[in-house]
Amino acid sequence: MKTSPSWTHPVSDLLRVDAGFRLADIDPHATPGYDGTKADAARELAGGAARLSDLQERLFAQSVAGVAPGSVLLVLQAMDTAGKGGIVRHVVGAVDPQGVELASFKKPTEEELAHDFLWRVRPRLPAPGRIGVFDRSHYEDVLIGRVRALAPPEEIERRYAAIVDFEADAVARGIRMVKVMLHISKEEQKERLTERLDRPDKHWKYNPADVDERERWDDYMAAYQTVFERTSLATSPWFVVPADRKWYARSAVQQLLIDALASLDPHWPAADFDVAAERARLAAS
Amino acid sequence: MKTSPSWTHPVSDLLRVDAGFRLADIDPHATPGYDGTKADAARELAGGAARLSDLQERLFAQSVAGVAPGSVLLVLQAMDTAGKGGIVRHVVGAVDPQGVELASFKKPTEEELAHDFLWRVRPRLPAPGRIGVFDRSHYEDVLIGRVRALAPPEEIERRYAAIVDFEADAVARGIRMVKVMLHISKEEQKERLTERLDRPDKHWKYNPADVDERERWDDYMAAYQTVFERTSLATSPWFVVPADRKWYARSAVQQLLIDALASLDPHWPAADFDVAAERARLAAS
Repeated sequence: MKTSPSWTHPVSDLLRVDAGFRLADIDPHATPGYDGTKADAARELAGGAARLSDLQERLFAQSVAGVAPGSVLLVLQAMDTAGKGGIVRHVVGAVDPQGVELASFKKPTEEELAHDFLWRVRPRLPAPGRIGVFDRSHYEDVLIGRVRALAPPEEIERRYAAIVDFEADAVARGIRMVKVMLHISKEEQKERLTERLDRPDKHWKYNPADVDERERWDDYMAAYQTVFERTSLATSPWFVVPADRKWYARSAVQQLLIDALASLDPHWPAADFDVAAERARLAAS
Repeated sequence: MKTSPSWTHPVSDLLRVDAGFRLADIDPHATPGYDGTKADAARELAGGAARLSDLQERLFAQSVAGVAPGSVLLVLQAMDTAGKGGIVRHVVGAVDPQGVELASFKKPTEEELAHDFLWRVRPRLPAPGRIGVFDRSHYEDVLIGRVRALAPPEEIERRYAAIVDFEADAVARGIRMVKVMLHISKEEQKERLTERLDRPDKHWKYNPADVDERERWDDYMAAYQTVFERTSLATSPWFVVPADRKWYARSAVQQLLIDALASLDPHWPAADFDVAAERARLAAS
């Protein structure tokens, strides 16, 4: 099923972070590889949702039968206002909630801080047959952790390797990682934050601390660059998704999820019971 | 906003289990209080979804601001094939996944069995500002628990009072309980199970054990009747929703959820920061 005719190339090729990647070269306002309009993207998002939903249901069915070939984990990282919530709502929200495991990682609690930074993350990895979503993730510990010096430099250094090990282990256990940075421009963020201040029904989304982080913009971009260099691997690559245009980012992430699910080749599991015998039992009941 | 003009009365009045209720008097194929067609219901479900979503977002916003007035817990109980999954998918699935906490209670594990029956349930009560959904629940322990004599009679007896206490405590902590039994007829169940056998893409939903439970139909209806008599209280009433027609059941449960959320009167929280000062900070950043 060709659901997104406006994509000229596989999104995974277009947006993957490979050797030599430089975040500074990416234009957050661009729409690379998408040969269509915003209206096309809205229409195709509905078609993609049906495709994603079908794949997810097959995978879920396999997990019920105990034969799921794996799971998918979408890791979402971004500066504030980049649209993580919209991805959860409009892309992930299109599939059956029963098959989704959503984990939001906020500022760590005292208990979490008393443990290794991966302690709170491990138990949230998706079970076989599920789509897991990390709204923020273990990468916060090398992003704000680095920018704000929340841990000593040698501890931050140690974490990159720990993340690589952690993810390699997850991949070996059948988890397909889709690591996405939604990349907005500093100008676009100002517009979105301004809108939150202008609308009383958006005030709850505004946090004065967001401006504090905004003032460290360049430090964050440098921290992301380092993340990409240290943790974008063949088996768990990063994708940097230009996100100034929400319709582009949503379509791109949807495609990445479809590809990840399709790579598991989910299919309806065979009956583990005698269909004819059950039909007879049921008829007699 | 009047989203469902086809309802002649509030669903909570139409379907609530009050004193003198008899399950045997309820026709699972009926559509009490709905003065419209299946097509009307489909159209109105979309309108209701927008209303539910708006209420949920306000409540969620209040929780972010630390001022959520409470939460809602939808408890779903039913015989197999009655449509619990469809409610989760088509009614609950219409709101932002971030605001939903879904708990499916399967056959208890060894660890769960080693504890009191409420042990695994307590931690799954929804946090303030959330919509919790129990796909099956602590009521299994007085339904299959009773029908299959999984615990001694005196333990089953004890559980009704324990449930009443447990729910009273939850209500006192701000949880609005919406307890729903989706009520299908034995004939309709046979049709739905037959369809699962007829379609290879539905085989995964078929479980031979479902026919074993089906053969205890009357025992289950008696166990439900007892549940209603012992646990339908003014502050946490049961609703028996005729469910042979899926469109009716979905519309009814949506209305019950809308009523529960509306009763919390959620509204956009006031800013806890100085909007003008933040506008100036942002402009300078």
